[in-house]
Amino acid sequence: MPKLLQIDFEFKGPFGEEMAEGLHDLAVSINQEPGLIWKIWTENKEKQEAGGIYLFENEETARAYLEMHAARLRAFGVNEVNAKIFDVNEPLSKINKGSV
Amino acid sequence: MPKLLQIDFEFKGPFGEEMAEGLHDLAVSINQEPGLIWKIWTENKEKQEAGGIYLFENEETARAYLEMHAARLRAFGVNEVNAKIFDVNEPLSKINKGSV
Repeated sequence: MPKLLQIDFEFKGPFGEEMAEGLHDLAVSINQEPGLIWKIWTENKEKQEAGGIYLFENEETARAYLEMHAARLRAFGVNEVNAKIFDVNEPLSKINKGSV
Repeated sequence: MPKLLQIDFEFKGPFGEEMAEGLHDLAVSINQEPGLIWKIWTENKEKQEAGGIYLFENEETARAYLEMHAARLRAFGVNEVNAKIFDVNEPLSKINKGSV
């Protein structure tokens, strides 16, 4: 069953185009992560936050990614990561054109 | 510029198919909300949480929806709603097949 992983954390930038350039190679590498179906990259320059909404094939791959990603963020000085894993209600999401 | 709205809150159910049946009409009505592009319905029976990931056309419609939805949740006894609004980094999301 697919799982949605919701992550956000304090982030000092870069944002926008500069973020897209700086993290291009990281994004390409994320496509190789086991079980990843898609990721939406989120950012809020005003509130100095960033994160991601991910869909994984199952809970095991979502949890493995979260563990790896939290460790990577700690290496960049980000110690507090808000993370939640959800099931997706597919019939309701389909009504509202949500891509799952 | 499109905005992503991330919402979650305590939820006692119903979950799964029962949720899909009970909230079918609400989902249909959400398609009429100004500015809504899509919604993914999230739920976690084990943790007794539910929520949604929404894409809106702009910040104004995302904020208006959040205000209305928080009031509706309060009417159902849900007083604490976690909500964040983000920009989407489109070039990075496109690399990772995120639908925006």
